[in-house]
Amino acid sequence: MDTARLEAFSDGVFAVAITLLVLEIKVPHSGALGAGLLLLWPSYLAYAISFVVIGAIWINHHVMFEWIVKADLELLLLNTLLLLFIAFLPFATAVLAEAFHQRVDQDIAAAFYGSTLAVIGLFVNFMWRYCSRNPELLSHTITPEQVKAIGKRYALGPMGYAVATLSAFFSPWVSILIFIGLNVFFLWPRRKLEPTPVPK
Amino acid sequence: MDTARLEAFSDGVFAVAITLLVLEIKVPHSGALGAGLLLLWPSYLAYAISFVVIGAIWINHHVMFEWIVKADLELLLLNTLLLLFIAFLPFATAVLAEAFHQRVDQDIAAAFYGSTLAVIGLFVNFMWRYCSRNPELLSHTITPEQVKAIGKRYALGPMGYAVATLSAFFSPWVSILIFIGLNVFFLWPRRKLEPTPVPK
Amino acid sequence: MDTARLEAFSDGVFAVAITLLVLEIKVPHSGALGAGLLLLWPSYLAYAISFVVIGAIWINHHVMFEWIVKADLELLLLNTLLLLFIAFLPFATAVLAEAFHQRVDQDIAAAFYGSTLAVIGLFVNFMWRYCSRNPELLSHTITPEQVKAIGKRYALGPMGYAVATLSAFFSPWVSILIFIGLNVFFLWPRRKLEPTPVPK
Amino acid sequence: MDTARLEAFSDGVFAVAITLLVLEIKVPHSGALGAGLLLLWPSYLAYAISFVVIGAIWINHHVMFEWIVKADLELLLLNTLLLLFIAFLPFATAVLAEAFHQRVDQDIAAAFYGSTLAVIGLFVNFMWRYCSRNPELLSHTITPEQVKAIGKRYALGPMGYAVATLSAFFSPWVSILIFIGLNVFFLWPRRKLEPTPVPK
Repeated sequence: MDTARLEAFSDGVFAVAITLLVLEIKVPHSGALGAGLLLLWPSYLAYAISFVVIGAIWINHHVMFEWIVKADLELLLLNTLLLLFIAFLPFATAVLAEAFHQRVDQDIAAAFYGSTLAVIGLFVNFMWRYCSRNPELLSHTITPEQVKAIGKRYALGPMGYAVATLSAFFSPWVSILIFIGLNVFFLWPRRKLEPTPVPK
Repeated sequence: MDTARLEAFSDGVFAVAITLLVLEIKVPHSGALGAGLLLLWPSYLAYAISFVVIGAIWINHHVMFEWIVKADLELLLLNTLLLLFIAFLPFATAVLAEAFHQRVDQDIAAAFYGSTLAVIGLFVNFMWRYCSRNPELLSHTITPEQVKAIGKRYALGPMGYAVATLSAFFSPWVSILIFIGLNVFFLWPRRKLEPTPVPK
Repeated sequence: MDTARLEAFSDGVFAVAITLLVLEIKVPHSGALGAGLLLLWPSYLAYAISFVVIGAIWINHHVMFEWIVKADLELLLLNTLLLLFIAFLPFATAVLAEAFHQRVDQDIAAAFYGSTLAVIGLFVNFMWRYCSRNPELLSHTITPEQVKAIGKRYALGPMGYAVATLSAFFSPWVSILIFIGLNVFFLWPRRKLEPTPVPK
Repeated sequence: MDTARLEAFSDGVFAVAITLLVLEIKVPHSGALGAGLLLLWPSYLAYAISFVVIGAIWINHHVMFEWIVKADLELLLLNTLLLLFIAFLPFATAVLAEAFHQRVDQDIAAAFYGSTLAVIGLFVNFMWRYCSRNPELLSHTITPEQVKAIGKRYALGPMGYAVATLSAFFSPWVSILIFIGLNVFFLWPRRKLEPTPVPK
């Protein structure tokens, strides 16, 4: 099976999930509007973090499928489970924002949000691992060393998010900082670590 | 009429419907957040089942349109009615989750959910049956035996979901198990039963 | 400007609008679930009518753009206004369903819904009229007679919906029947009236 | 990195955001339906303004990517931040509509809405400025003069919206008129100012 429609469908889910994030932010109904809009800062923060997270995963998904040239049913299934957790992010984001708004149970909310991201990271790894064990799915132009190097970089995702999840019970703000840090990390220094992709 | 835009439009509806499922899960507002998140398990379960169901129908729709090379108005109409019930799934999913959450009327909720899936299965069959009676819509590379074999496999869908629907009145949990079982069945052993698709 | 991305964007709006219709149907929270689900029939009816309406407009939009080969800013603007009213349909549908559910002000709700559809029909006509006055936007293979014949058929839309709107004050059920009738009419006998589209 | 999938993903976010705008309009539940629908005029107005704004930004984004032929990570990041604020518009629109409905804090709501648009305009400028400093991302057929002319036109966006934002504290209705005026301006006289785009 060709990957074109799989990529198009995944892109659709990414685009809808990233845009649904805004539904979590509710118009303030009581008191002065100015104060109400300012008090929504946890919603803005959670919205911005999740937007960049989904954007970064989309970019990585995109780059991954520049190497993957064929999809079988197992890969399709792994991709569906990955999307299941990505489409779940608007809910995890709403939980995070609400807890910081109510100033109650921020640790649990940050851990819940962090574990969702860790599971997403795991499925990215499962997909790549599956492909590296089935190299007929990959482009001929990629070398085994490149496959390994990419795999190592992907492994940092779930590890980082697991650390963020555990940190929540120490301080939920540390988790937030790690979420932001990982966003920056995954978007920033990629060019140096990664082999140049080649057209299929 | 070419099928490319029909497929793209259908993919859009699939992608939006699958991502809207998450809106059914509401942030818990009373009591401890940890307990509240755990109590939402019926929502997570219903979400996961429906996500995989829509994913599996999407894959099957995709495979079906590797054989269908032209669409006429009747097929377009059947496809629209199929999408009507697929886009209805977020509601049926919310009904299922709510009933298991309230522990009231689970049988009716499971039967309602199961009949929605059975109707979806029926329309998949109507579409394929229509194509097999109008072979000019199909690829030249498919043999009548393959058309029949695929038709037989599709017939299992509505039958399985009808059984799940009726089982709900015996025990709603049996329905749930059948929903999960059919998800596994429709995603798993397909490769052996089906003829290899050929490029259009 | 090429029409490919315009069509893709329009398809996206059609796909999201048609799938958002389901959000109008709310899970019943009080009383027995079976009765609650049955009492939602106005929501199901409004959902089904609007789903088929949007599906039919999508098909017509699609067919129209088999003849339109170029887009200028005016056409883009008309298309944006058409989409504005199509994306408004989930609200008009919710108004219709709610009024029939409450059994209050059904006439106003049906007239509101009907005028939304009439305005949509008007913009379809504006777009075609604009193209027929700027034939450089159209495919070379279409004859002026065909352009006129299509224009005449499009004119039936706003007229039919205007009749449905006015009928609402006589009886809202007559409006509903006209909505259903127009759905059937616009999907059914098209093949005989229309010239065969030719590839661009 | 090729811009095709970036454009497709952006189009998806545009299409979902523009269609989510309608969720801000709530069915009136108390009193006569006719009066209730009329009282919703601030929602209709805000909906129409935002719909045309997003449509206009989509068109401009589209035109911009007729000149941009390659994307690097910085451009991808800027585009993601642009989309972040576009996907935020359904919320800003709801805030605007609610304030005009309640007749309270209209100035703050109009300023909030205006600053969101100003930030969107800024990111459009950042993207174009980044491309003009990295001309290898641009088509070879565009001259430095054209790049500058386009940059100047883009600069009008954030300036116009900044004026609208500040005017809100003088009179929120002046802001509304500027929003409408800028919509007309950005859609209307473009053809004369801009160099003809050439196919990539």
